[in-house]
Amino acid sequence: MRTIRLAVAGLGVVGSETVRLLRSRRESLCRRLGARLELAAVCDRRAPAAARRLGLPASVRRLTDPARLAALPGVDAVVELLGGLGAPRRLILDCLRRGRGVVTANKRLLAHSWDELRRAAAQGGGRLHFEASVAGGIPILKALDLSLAGDRIEAVYGILNGTTNFILTRMAEGLEPAAALRRAQELGLAEKNPTLDLSGQDTADKVSILASLVTGAWLRPDQVRTQGIQEIGLEDMVFAETALGRRVKLLGVARFPAHDGREPRVEAFVGPALVPIEHPLAAVQDEFNAVLVRAASAGDLMFYGRGAGAGPAASAVLGDILALGRELLSGAAPAAQRSGPAPRLCDSDCAFYLRLGALDRPGVLSAVTAALGRLGISIATINQPGGCDPKSVPIILTTHRTSPGTFGRALRDILALPNVSRRHTVMRLLP
Amino acid sequence: MRTIRLAVAGLGVVGSETVRLLRSRRESLCRRLGARLELAAVCDRRAPAAARRLGLPASVRRLTDPARLAALPGVDAVVELLGGLGAPRRLILDCLRRGRGVVTANKRLLAHSWDELRRAAAQGGGRLHFEASVAGGIPILKALDLSLAGDRIEAVYGILNGTTNFILTRMAEGLEPAAALRRAQELGLAEKNPTLDLSGQDTADKVSILASLVTGAWLRPDQVRTQGIQEIGLEDMVFAETALGRRVKLLGVARFPAHDGREPRVEAFVGPALVPIEHPLAAVQDEFNAVLVRAASAGDLMFYGRGAGAGPAASAVLGDILALGRELLSGAAPAAQRSGPAPRLCDSDCAFYLRLGALDRPGVLSAVTAALGRLGISIATINQPGGCDPKSVPIILTTHRTSPGTFGRALRDILALPNVSRRHTVMRLLP
Repeated sequence: MRTIRLAVAGLGVVGSETVRLLRSRRESLCRRLGARLELAAVCDRRAPAAARRLGLPASVRRLTDPARLAALPGVDAVVELLGGLGAPRRLILDCLRRGRGVVTANKRLLAHSWDELRRAAAQGGGRLHFEASVAGGIPILKALDLSLAGDRIEAVYGILNGTTNFILTRMAEGLEPAAALRRAQELGLAEKNPTLDLSGQDTADKVSILASLVTGAWLRPDQVRTQGIQEIGLEDMVFAETALGRRVKLLGVARFPAHDGREPRVEAFVGPALVPIEHPLAAVQDEFNAVLVRAASAGDLMFYGRGAGAGPAASAVLGDILALGRELLSGAAPAAQRSGPAPRLCDSDCAFYLRLGALDRPGVLSAVTAALGRLGISIATINQPGGCDPKSVPIILTTHRTSPGTFGRALRDILALPNVSRRHTVMRLLP
Repeated sequence: MRTIRLAVAGLGVVGSETVRLLRSRRESLCRRLGARLELAAVCDRRAPAAARRLGLPASVRRLTDPARLAALPGVDAVVELLGGLGAPRRLILDCLRRGRGVVTANKRLLAHSWDELRRAAAQGGGRLHFEASVAGGIPILKALDLSLAGDRIEAVYGILNGTTNFILTRMAEGLEPAAALRRAQELGLAEKNPTLDLSGQDTADKVSILASLVTGAWLRPDQVRTQGIQEIGLEDMVFAETALGRRVKLLGVARFPAHDGREPRVEAFVGPALVPIEHPLAAVQDEFNAVLVRAASAGDLMFYGRGAGAGPAASAVLGDILALGRELLSGAAPAAQRSGPAPRLCDSDCAFYLRLGALDRPGVLSAVTAALGRLGISIATINQPGGCDPKSVPIILTTHRTSPGTFGRALRDILALPNVSRRHTVMRLLP
């Protein structure tokens, strides 16, 4: 029976759980693979202590410098769970260029260095697996890349960030945003500095990976129009639920309109969206993730599960280790990398929600509606609740479908009006 | 660029859609695979007419006898969409023994001939793909076999039959069972003879495939304890929703209890179950399918989508064609077949729902409750609505958790009581 020898870099929560499972599930993994999986080395700044804590036998080498891992003899594949960007990037590039297989969960690195990693793999013949990088334990990447490979993916709508979904779920129950964030931090669901999550940037990285996988061409994270949840207040949640029958969710969206032989197009954005209450994405609560895939033949598919945590991430990492192991055992050359033509960015029409703060003066409402009318934007609903502080009266309106560009121009005009506050909330309405 | 040559056997709705998509998506499939996919032959009782209808070029061979397909020169892989058992079995066995790749959607054949097909593949080196056999366009088999290969699957709960889920959805809205079935037949969602669907047998075939895939050992369909929806009445739906806060769903369940080194165990059953309204499976309506996978590390995952129809089935078949194509191009020998030890069948405790019809005579209720008490079964709720026909008064009760065997013995005792009708409804309560 053959042996695949692994090195695990990074013994944080996911790395430690991966190592623990590699040992406790040794027999069933061996049956699954038809070969032995041997932990040959671990690498961590505190490798000796971590190895002791994990009860690793003396035969497992302990390294503290990841730079040494790519060339370490007697290793077939490296599992990169270091976190950060610099050291993982150097390690993965070095492995791929040497033809060594890599499994990683590093979404930020993948999103920001997609092309560089692909090129290194093509050059050196290394194989790269990264199921854990998007939606944790939900096997969405293999579904898009393998199971649905023969279908035409029309769109992907995801709740891809557990932290913000937890916060929005608590806010829908009436908790103030700051208190909801504190609760998430207490439960270990949000980091001390939650900016990457709240700003939507983490979701944009995942949209970048999903879209790049679907089209075969890198969609950079900075090409994903990104808005966070920082401007969402309790009044938005209440109005959404009571007046519109909708829930606020932070969605990452990539749409791939049919292109009839012309150049392919992609629309990608991240932002708070108003989802109809009966929509399956509205039912995704707490720190759960979900991805709705719209495929031309399969129709709407939804994948739901835990998007984070040591268990789900380690489950995805182990699945990747077995996939990589099978490829190595087969002895086959890596499949040619699919490279589609780079799609052109596009927009599609959409209905918008806008909450403004205005001084209670005559003519404000008329000026706001005139700014929209001038650009041909039709108002679907408008509300100005009474009995408020006259220094900041909320105006809440929704539009009929219009292009995001036109809506953006109207919004700039509105925010430049006298008696209208700069602070505002914008959301898309999911059809 | 290399070419994979395909033969499609069976040009019914799924076969025709597969052929249509192979041609209309030719370019994108070629980009995905890094090789050309060529339709070399079709086979159908009315192949010439079907080929004309599909506008196939003269270069595509038309056969009417599937027996000739396995040895037809110039074919790399056969797509079996004939339907039925005899001819597909002979064709697939012949292909696999000759080392030819096969894609099939034939759930009934897979469930009933699992071991024979596996042996033929091992003998001859043929590869067999069958994603479309369970839950149509939902990529659940590759998820279990590849993505979750490193996890420990604890249980699979599925709504795997669109026909019965459509009927139960209409019944929950108040439609009588017979009318709900007629509606399904009018919409093409139920066959003229709906026995395989209504009896739960179709679901049992799918549970057989899911369990065999998870354990690596064949679980025969006749080992799946199977009950259909024929005994479910509107009164059950109403009582479930109003008194118990639950919905009736036909579930296929396979559980794999942890076995700590002793022989593996499997519990498999199909039957109408009472699902709490807030449970994600309760939200699966109409002809949709869903599979909830409970994995030790990933936690609960749910996969949701269309379980039937030409588009979803063809999507899964195309995904399998590409997977098979990649394997053929890689030139690698087929992976060793995983064969786990045959698990022992087991049961687990469960709460039950029972609706009886009784004559309105003194002592009936006392005799029923005594029969349960004698076997140590504790009653959770009991209802006897008033104002009914005194010749058949319904008694509706739910029990606390008990073993299915003990409950079955008590039920036999109850049905043997004087003044109790033989007709009854039993359901499990999903925790």
